[in-house]
Amino acid sequence: MTQPEFAAWKTLDRKVVLDKGKFLKVEQHTVELPDGRIIDDWQWVITPDYVNIVAVTEDDHYLCFRQTKYAVTGPTLALIGGYMEPGEEPLAAAQRELKEETGFAAARWTLLGEFAVDANRGAGRAHFYLATGARRVADPIVDDLEEQELRHLTRREIEAALRGGEFKVLPWAAAVALAITR
Amino acid sequence: MTQPEFAAWKTLDRKVVLDKGKFLKVEQHTVELPDGRIIDDWQWVITPDYVNIVAVTEDDHYLCFRQTKYAVTGPTLALIGGYMEPGEEPLAAAQRELKEETGFAAARWTLLGEFAVDANRGAGRAHFYLATGARRVADPIVDDLEEQELRHLTRREIEAALRGGEFKVLPWAAAVALAITR
Repeated sequence: MTQPEFAAWKTLDRKVVLDKGKFLKVEQHTVELPDGRIIDDWQWVITPDYVNIVAVTEDDHYLCFRQTKYAVTGPTLALIGGYMEPGEEPLAAAQRELKEETGFAAARWTLLGEFAVDANRGAGRAHFYLATGARRVADPIVDDLEEQELRHLTRREIEAALRGGEFKVLPWAAAVALAITR
Repeated sequence: MTQPEFAAWKTLDRKVVLDKGKFLKVEQHTVELPDGRIIDDWQWVITPDYVNIVAVTEDDHYLCFRQTKYAVTGPTLALIGGYMEPGEEPLAAAQRELKEETGFAAARWTLLGEFAVDANRGAGRAHFYLATGARRVADPIVDDLEEQELRHLTRREIEAALRGGEFKVLPWAAAVALAITR
């Protein structure tokens, strides 16, 4: 395939228009397009990067939560994961979240992919890992605001749950689908 | 599996803290948790719902764009798609976007999934479709801000592109992975 070189948009200026601390800032950018056009009100959302982990136990079960989330109607299946701390590497964050949320540690870690959450407006980056050979090494640290319950799903069960729409949030469905395509 | 009933968070109050028109609003919600705790500064991002389409031609090629996007470094493979218009149904939006962006129409439409983009903060919903038996019926309407080039990928090529990280944006990788798992 030919690979034409596309020019990138240039950010000429940026100013903060909303600052709600580490979980949400909004900037307004002045952007120059390759053809010279100027857009002076391009909104840019700044939220923390996050990790999600498809964790598979030593006996080949997938670790998921069943829980409620504010943006979701009814219970949903969820993956282990959370926001990266400032300066934290994605893999370190993934290993921390697995340990904190479940008390498990995994023998092998494979990057499933790293993505911009939104193509236009920012909203951070998502980092997905497959963690296999997971076994319980400690007690989980329960500090989330939501009620949740840890489930151990077989491969067949997680595939059925994905197809049945039980993962109701985009990054969780994405990471499960990416793991299944491996 | 047992299915414990989790209580939902209650929205007690909401106020707009940033209004940038139809592409971005931010609200601050006062939320009551099931245990009675009150959170009075829960940020809620309002962006339009969107559709993405994994379109397969009559001769079994996957339609993708190669393009630049502001939130992405370097070129990326992209899916057909875009924001839903106010009041528009997801399937109608998907059919409109396929026609506008490529000039193609598809014989069969299958819902791949509908997801909250963010579990906590809103940011709209993503609707993904598999459209098969696609054939060109009109000229595309070129009105996007980005340069882009339509590609026809074989199944093997799109699987390799997904695994190779050429889809750099979360919803596109998610929809491709969901289509492949079918």
